[in-house]
This record gives sequence, structure tokens and C-alpha cells, in this order.
Amino acid sequence: MATNTQSIRRRGIYLLPNLFTTGALFAGFYAITSAMNHHYETAVASIFVAMILDGLDGRVARLTNTQSEFGAQYDSLSDMVSFGVAPALVMYLWAFSSLGRLGLFAAFVHTAGGALRLARFNTQIETADKRYFQGLPSPAAAAILAGFIWICLEHQYDIDVIKYFAIALTVITGLLMVSNFRYSSFKQIDLKKRVPFIVAIAIMLAIAFVMAQPQTMLFLVFLGYAVSGPLITLTQRKRILSERKN
Amino acid sequence: MATNTQSIRRRGIYLLPNLFTTGALFAGFYAITSAMNHHYETAVASIFVAMILDGLDGRVARLTNTQSEFGAQYDSLSDMVSFGVAPALVMYLWAFSSLGRLGLFAAFVHTAGGALRLARFNTQIETADKRYFQGLPSPAAAAILAGFIWICLEHQYDIDVIKYFAIALTVITGLLMVSNFRYSSFKQIDLKKRVPFIVAIAIMLAIAFVMAQPQTMLFLVFLGYAVSGPLITLTQRKRILSERKN
Repeated sequence: MATNTQSIRRRGIYLLPNLFTTGALFAGFYAITSAMNHHYETAVASIFVAMILDGLDGRVARLTNTQSEFGAQYDSLSDMVSFGVAPALVMYLWAFSSLGRLGLFAAFVHTAGGALRLARFNTQIETADKRYFQGLPSPAAAAILAGFIWICLEHQYDIDVIKYFAIALTVITGLLMVSNFRYSSFKQIDLKKRVPFIVAIAIMLAIAFVMAQPQTMLFLVFLGYAVSGPLITLTQRKRILSERKN
Repeated sequence: MATNTQSIRRRGIYLLPNLFTTGALFAGFYAITSAMNHHYETAVASIFVAMILDGLDGRVARLTNTQSEFGAQYDSLSDMVSFGVAPALVMYLWAFSSLGRLGLFAAFVHTAGGALRLARFNTQIETADKRYFQGLPSPAAAAILAGFIWICLEHQYDIDVIKYFAIALTVITGLLMVSNFRYSSFKQIDLKKRVPFIVAIAIMLAIAFVMAQPQTMLFLVFLGYAVSGPLITLTQRKRILSERKN
């Protein structure tokens, strides 16, 4: 029954970063309910909104020095809903309804892959090499599925034609999350460092390029990132092997 | 690049408890997809299966001495799906479809309540009083919603009549999870201690009673547990106040 000052202080939570996390959780939840009401474009857009809010919460916490163990746990549970459950269920509702058990299997591999990825990330947070992620991050896996659905909706592709491709994409992204492939975390990039002027032009062109065809570009960017993991890992392994030979 | 023995050992996970956790996660996921296909009885039964498997994983880990940080994280993410997302979505699909924003609001309060409850539990795991849980545990909240749906299906109650009651139940269980009410964890009960023979008879009667009307009894048991929190807390507060006066 002892209520000391420390336990009182511990009971409070930081408002700002947790607001972003709740926003991300809501966006993920809204994606699922939208797909249930057959509003797939809204569902897909909601997953991207969840990605943006999820990208902000950690940054806001670091900037305002309000990181907390509670925030990290809440963020991880929110990620589970927005990037583990939502993309799998949206995909299931959109393309897998005629596939029975196969669709259930593919969607569950993606969700369970997301859960295993998040649990592993949470337990390796202190020991891991900061420059790389082990396995495809769950927001990137979610973006690939959401981007794919978005492209198909835009071009009105026939679901019956692409459904097996959708199954493959859902299973492969689920497995890439739990793979041992190394993905760049982009944490070496120093945002405060001066860069040549040409970089500003390149960034401008990149944004204009994405904006012209956001669905296709977002999909391709994240697909490229998914492919980069195996490439980086194999190149590094090859280099180590050839160094050992010499 | 240094790969020492410890990091290799850390990479492995314990099979047995994580099998139960994956089973619980699958049951939760299956509950959602069953509800999407309008198989509400299967959905509700799956949530109870998830509860049983979730109750076993921690016990199996303690018995076989295979508790791990990874297992705890994975368990918590699985709980989020099975007890935070699944009951809210099953309820949403079953009763809230005609209610628009109100249904979305109620379902989200339950899911977000589950996320906040799990994040708080994970961060207070070392400091908390083991005899009590702070806030209604998420499996109990899930059981109340699942039990309620099960009773209504069994007796074929008209959804239009009970939908506002369903809304209230969903919101209240969501809020009870994040409340400060204290719930007995039943951890003082020593399962290895000898008890009078009458206890064996009482347990037998209790099981027979539940089996005769499982839906109603499960619902009532968990509803009683949900009500016990405010009662215990108020009684304890009253006692402390009256002790201070004397």
C-alpha cells in the first residue's frame, strides 16, 4: 500500500509521443474497418497514414526527450495492429475471399511474421548493430502490400488474375520480416551535415517523381528496399569469404 | 561482425511455450476471419481457445523453465491480436454495422484500451503488487464480449434490440482495462496445499454448472470478475479511510 513519490511519478505518461502512437493505432484500426465496408482505397491510405504517424512518434519522443519504456511498448503494440494485422486483413478481404484456406494461410503468415519480427526487435534493441535492421521492418512490409493494392485499384486490375501474385507477395513479405537479411536502417545518415547542392536537386526530383505516380512509386521504393536486404547480405558474405581466402 | 557464442545462443528461441503463443495468435486471427465470413459462433469459440492457449504458454514456460524476454514480448503481441483487436472486430461485424461512427468509436475504445493495458502491464511487471492486477486483464474483457455474443446467438436475440447494450459493454470493458481498479490475480492460491474434501465437491459442482450452460456461465463468471474490481478497490479504500479516522 506504500505509495511513494517515485511510483506516483511513474504512473504518468508523456502526452505528445503517445498521441502520435494512438493516432497510428487508430489509422491501422480504421484501415481494417474500411476494408470490411469495401472501402479499399481508404483502407490503403490509412495504412500509409499509420506509417507516417509511427515514423513521427519515436522522433518526437527523442526530440522532446520523452522516451519511455511505456511508449516503446505501446508503439510496438500499435505497430502490431497497423503493420501486422491490418495489411494482412485488408489483403484477405480484397483478394483472398475466394481462396479459402490458402488465403487464410497467407494472411496469417504475414501477421505472425510481423509479431515475431516485433518481438525479436524488442528483445535485441540493446545488442543489435544500429546501422542495420535484422529482417524487413514491418512498416516496409505493410507498405508493399498497401502499395500493391493501391496500384491494382488505380488500374482496375482483375483480382482473379493477380490473386496468386498477391498470395506470394503476402507470404514473402511475411517471411522477409523474420529472415536474417540485413536492411539498412539509414541511421548513418547525419541529417545535420552539409551536403552538396546537387543533393537538394536530387531530393526535389525524387519527390516530384513520387508525387506524379504515388502508388507505383511508393510500391517500387519499398519493393526495392525489400530486395536490398538479400543483396546487401549476400554481398557482405561474399566479401568476407573472399577476404578469408586471401 | 563479431559473432560470439553468447549471441548465437541468444538467437535461438524456446519451442514449447512459443508454440502455444503462436496457437493463441492463430486462434485470435481465425476469430476475425471467421467473423468476416459471418461465422460468429466459430469466431466466439476461437476467442475462448485463444484464452486457453494464452493461459497455458506462461505456465508451460515456468514449468519447463523456458521463460524468456522474447517469449514475453511475443505473448504480449499475440494478446493484442486475440484480446484487443479480435473481440472488438467480431463485435463490430456482428452488431455495429448499422451504427456507423458510433460502432467504430466503441470498437476502437476497446482495442486502444487493450493496447494501453498491455503496455502498462509490461512496464510495471517488476514493480507491481503480485496479488492484484491493475485494471481488468484483457482476456477477461475479451471473454465478456465473446460470452455476450455467444448468449445472444444461442437465444437468437434481435441485434437491433441489444446493439446499444453491446456498445455500452464494449466501451465499459475497454475502459475497465485502463482503470486503476484492482483485480485479484488469484496468485495467493497455493495449488499444492491440501484443502478440505468439500472443496473438491464444490469444484465438481461448479464445473457441472458451467457445462450445463457454458455461454451464460462463462459470461456471468467474467462479468462478476469485472465487477469485483471496483468493489475490491472501494472496500479497501473505505477500510483505509476508517482506519485513519480511528
